[in-house]
Amino acid sequence: MTGRLIGVGVGPGDPELLTLKALGALKQADVVAYFAKEGNVSNARKIVAGHLNGAEELPLLYPVTTEIPKEHAGYRDAIRDFYDISAAAVASYLDDGRTVAILSEGDPLFYGSYMHLHVRLSTRYPTEVVAGVTGMSGCWSSVGAPMTQGDDVFTVLPGTLPEYELERRLADANAAVVMKIGRHLPKIRRACERAGCLDRAIYVERGTMTNAAVMKLTDKLDMTAPYFAIVLVPGWEERA
Amino acid sequence: MTGRLIGVGVGPGDPELLTLKALGALKQADVVAYFAKEGNVSNARKIVAGHLNGAEELPLLYPVTTEIPKEHAGYRDAIRDFYDISAAAVASYLDDGRTVAILSEGDPLFYGSYMHLHVRLSTRYPTEVVAGVTGMSGCWSSVGAPMTQGDDVFTVLPGTLPEYELERRLADANAAVVMKIGRHLPKIRRACERAGCLDRAIYVERGTMTNAAVMKLTDKLDMTAPYFAIVLVPGWEERA
Repeated sequence: MTGRLIGVGVGPGDPELLTLKALGALKQADVVAYFAKEGNVSNARKIVAGHLNGAEELPLLYPVTTEIPKEHAGYRDAIRDFYDISAAAVASYLDDGRTVAILSEGDPLFYGSYMHLHVRLSTRYPTEVVAGVTGMSGCWSSVGAPMTQGDDVFTVLPGTLPEYELERRLADANAAVVMKIGRHLPKIRRACERAGCLDRAIYVERGTMTNAAVMKLTDKLDMTAPYFAIVLVPGWEERA
Repeated sequence: MTGRLIGVGVGPGDPELLTLKALGALKQADVVAYFAKEGNVSNARKIVAGHLNGAEELPLLYPVTTEIPKEHAGYRDAIRDFYDISAAAVASYLDDGRTVAILSEGDPLFYGSYMHLHVRLSTRYPTEVVAGVTGMSGCWSSVGAPMTQGDDVFTVLPGTLPEYELERRLADANAAVVMKIGRHLPKIRRACERAGCLDRAIYVERGTMTNAAVMKLTDKLDMTAPYFAIVLVPGWEERA
């Protein structure tokens, strides 16, 4: 009998946004695994800190790859090897019949690293995924921004897209979220302006944390921003 | 002193996907309001049934407007009047200093009816929104479908779009969700086929319920489906 794999969405940051099902999974788990950078505390682990019941912890530490540019084949190989090794580490617990919960910020199957383990393990072991509140839901809720309604087309865009792609896609949707802001901030601002949505775009930093920063994108004039900041483009326009 | 308005996301259906914050809001609430159709039990109320602590209930019953076609100005007027009247009913409790929780399936600001009350009341009363797990997260988690990763473009499309629009937008995104299936099912199937994503499209009915139905869209040959069924187009393609 192998153990069970549970991918656990722990929500966007506020521990109060944990679900009952996530707490149940933590109770059942013999082992709690999470991704982290060497020397950093895992955000996902911080969120569940009050609910760990003495389960063994398995930190999965990203290799230091900042020297290798992301586009480089060497980076891709290093990351692939890391996910292979991490999956093997989790598998060894599962083979021992132990239940392993893998924490995932937000929702596990929505831009989550958990997915790399899911595709490697879910065909070999009984697997359950516990849905979580996404980071973007946490952000627009804390801002109180009415995002999408009725027949709206909604899109999620990475800030890494070329400017003309961002502009085209923003103009083509009723509501949007732009993620991964970082040094792409000025480009995103220009794309919003040309797509005609700059006036209603909202910049959010550390969305559901107590030290959240929220402002109109027109007021965020910096050349750069944290990588995990997001821009909300609410779809609601006088449709009450 | 007026009362507080709380828009409470109750998640996609499984009561275990309620958040701690949602339970906290229900505890604080003097009044619990929810939308429902005359003669039907509210889904949102069903989800929280085990956590109602004797608060007064305020069902907001949609007017019977099935005789009026949706495109008709008469329909729009009737619905607008209904939201005005509902907001006034909630406001009268808030004016009495009572805290009102309005239940919303999924996430309140993501395609939720709550939003119609939010835009009418949040500028006049202290308002909080409790993010919830969306219906789509519930669906792809129950299926275990890896949806989006890295720099994927993700889009949510209503099945009501014209066929060429569905095709164009499906071909233009890495991952997608099509909502509001109903009688649009054959059109959605054709659009997926022409956009090159039919083989990986998954049809999901009653996503997080115990009687969920899941199949490849290619195997769902009916001419119609429930309105609230959804189609998932996972973005993951051998990118492990």
